[in-house]
Amino acid sequence: MPQRPRLAVGPRVRKSPFFDATMRHGASVFSIYNHMYLPMAYLDGPEQGYWNVVNGVQLWDVGCERQVEIAGPDAMRFAQWLTPRNLGRCEVGQAVYAPMTAEDGGMVNDPVALRVEENRFWFSLADSDALLWALGLARNSGMEVDITEPDVSPLQVQGPKSNHLMRDLFGGWVDDLPFYRFREAELQGIPLVVARMGYSRERCFEIFLRDGSRGEELWRLLWAAGEAHGITAGAPSQALRMEGGLLSYLSDMGLRDNPFEIGFGWAVDLDQPDDFIGKEALRRIAEEGVSRRLAGAEINGEPLRVLNEEPWPVSCNGQPAGELRSCAYSPRLEKNIAYVMLDIDFTAPTTGFEVETSNGTRSGTVVEMPWMKRVR
Amino acid sequence: MPQRPRLAVGPRVRKSPFFDATMRHGASVFSIYNHMYLPMAYLDGPEQGYWNVVNGVQLWDVGCERQVEIAGPDAMRFAQWLTPRNLGRCEVGQAVYAPMTAEDGGMVNDPVALRVEENRFWFSLADSDALLWALGLARNSGMEVDITEPDVSPLQVQGPKSNHLMRDLFGGWVDDLPFYRFREAELQGIPLVVARMGYSRERCFEIFLRDGSRGEELWRLLWAAGEAHGITAGAPSQALRMEGGLLSYLSDMGLRDNPFEIGFGWAVDLDQPDDFIGKEALRRIAEEGVSRRLAGAEINGEPLRVLNEEPWPVSCNGQPAGELRSCAYSPRLEKNIAYVMLDIDFTAPTTGFEVETSNGTRSGTVVEMPWMKRVR
Repeated sequence: MPQRPRLAVGPRVRKSPFFDATMRHGASVFSIYNHMYLPMAYLDGPEQGYWNVVNGVQLWDVGCERQVEIAGPDAMRFAQWLTPRNLGRCEVGQAVYAPMTAEDGGMVNDPVALRVEENRFWFSLADSDALLWALGLARNSGMEVDITEPDVSPLQVQGPKSNHLMRDLFGGWVDDLPFYRFREAELQGIPLVVARMGYSRERCFEIFLRDGSRGEELWRLLWAAGEAHGITAGAPSQALRMEGGLLSYLSDMGLRDNPFEIGFGWAVDLDQPDDFIGKEALRRIAEEGVSRRLAGAEINGEPLRVLNEEPWPVSCNGQPAGELRSCAYSPRLEKNIAYVMLDIDFTAPTTGFEVETSNGTRSGTVVEMPWMKRVR
Repeated sequence: MPQRPRLAVGPRVRKSPFFDATMRHGASVFSIYNHMYLPMAYLDGPEQGYWNVVNGVQLWDVGCERQVEIAGPDAMRFAQWLTPRNLGRCEVGQAVYAPMTAEDGGMVNDPVALRVEENRFWFSLADSDALLWALGLARNSGMEVDITEPDVSPLQVQGPKSNHLMRDLFGGWVDDLPFYRFREAELQGIPLVVARMGYSRERCFEIFLRDGSRGEELWRLLWAAGEAHGITAGAPSQALRMEGGLLSYLSDMGLRDNPFEIGFGWAVDLDQPDDFIGKEALRRIAEEGVSRRLAGAEINGEPLRVLNEEPWPVSCNGQPAGELRSCAYSPRLEKNIAYVMLDIDFTAPTTGFEVETSNGTRSGTVVEMPWMKRVR
């Protein structure tokens, strides 16, 4: 880009309860996500931010992950209607990845569902107004549900030292919290939900603040407890999430992609007794197979310093084969890694391809992903 | 803010077909709107941009106004279901302001509806995923409709010289196009819809590009035709839209506000025979009256150089009275103008109030709006 664009700040876009804290700690590059500011990088730059996670403990303001709360007598049935994931197996206190699909199987959102009570679910959203989708569906559904956006703002504590900080503040139980489980908790009377999950494969926790007026207090308590462990402020990292095989809604998938095309077939339970939106289409797709698939890939050559601002065209032997949707240079792997949506014939590992970057053509190779497994 | 935040650019957010052109002409401050970049200011600054509209002709990239297309045998009935506005009175080739309301009457979006064919409507959206709302509603509606986001990207030609440029390019018929009417047109084979409307009360046109691959071509044709008239590139102006009494979704209203509270009662037809979402709630609200209302206001003192980044609290005689939602300094009026959501008791013109700005307390007065009428 010829100039470095600045971000407009005005009343149309909301600040998270942690916004002032992130500014104080040097948040300098932002996106807008679910109509809220999302810090994307700090003054120390994304690569230093990456190492600060990998070697320490870091706070991420992800207040823009809005929750859609489904409550009421038919909450279970309605929540199940929203996703191909079998929520019957999700216990109170458990979270599961739960894609939301449209009638044709396309991805409406890719949230994590938290079963907060027997008949109360939170869908912790990626970047689309799935609240409107759920409200639209509820009309004429014949189900008795309350659908709201509660006052809940998530914050992630990331990195190998995150459990030191969490133990100091909350006590030993956080060490025993299983992956994708959560518990209600309090800090000096601030109402919270503490979950063992986050947007990386590092050790991490997600804290759901349940009173937006107390964000500054919560941040300060976490910061004070983290100073002994070298805490930093940071932001979701493209390299970290891609190393772990995590996807980003609207970067890697959208309404035009179905779960089987993006490697989420494991989250689709076609045999469950209950109905869900898209079941018929997904059954047909499962039977017929997909004609394209999102694959992991490595891009040869120097570290990519310019990342893609839109999909980059990919070809195999001069023939159009698909597009690169996301890429990053992984400092740990010392490799350029990518997600590439490819015609199914080209998705076998070791398949070579060429990609037209904004800075010239490069060669690449399809590989197995993820590159990094979850830290236990 | 301590630092001037920069905008993150990556594949999650889409570029409009005019994006490269706006960058070339000095777009420097952006927001994100409907998951797309929206230029908000150019290197010459918002005040110069304002005068360039008022005295000349200016191009605005508003490609982020996505369209929801409703087509199929039941398109008329479904489109009507989406809005309290009586669409039965909207002819093919006509556009009408058509708020979308939820079951409880809250504002889901505040689009303009264009009747493109007898059974084909476009809802030209403000910043919410009303596509998902419409798709959710369609399920179980029993109506036969196709709901899609077509390849349509709007661009506005703003300012008193806009019709000179438009006449040079399209011919004399553009002078005779009535307000809120449109026509299909072509420029060198580029498929377009040309409408006499836009987001200001100046003379203006909205051109809907129907082939996203030809945005650069269209921009260059308009620019070449505009050079004789001193064309500039610019962005929707807070001062211009507020002078004319135009609202901004999520700044001035949202899901928690109903049309009667924001002065859109005129767009609600409770007597029409057809059903629409929210009819029952809006009938009740119409009967009971509202307890608060968005009012025009003027803020005393020096020109406001720091605008509100969130709602500012408003009080009357030391008593909480509401909040200021948007404000601007109008260079033409030489006044600070504002929209203030006030308890109904405080909405009479000449009522005085105090507002806590981010830069100290100021006094203000409720006034009639709009400040400027539409240029004919």
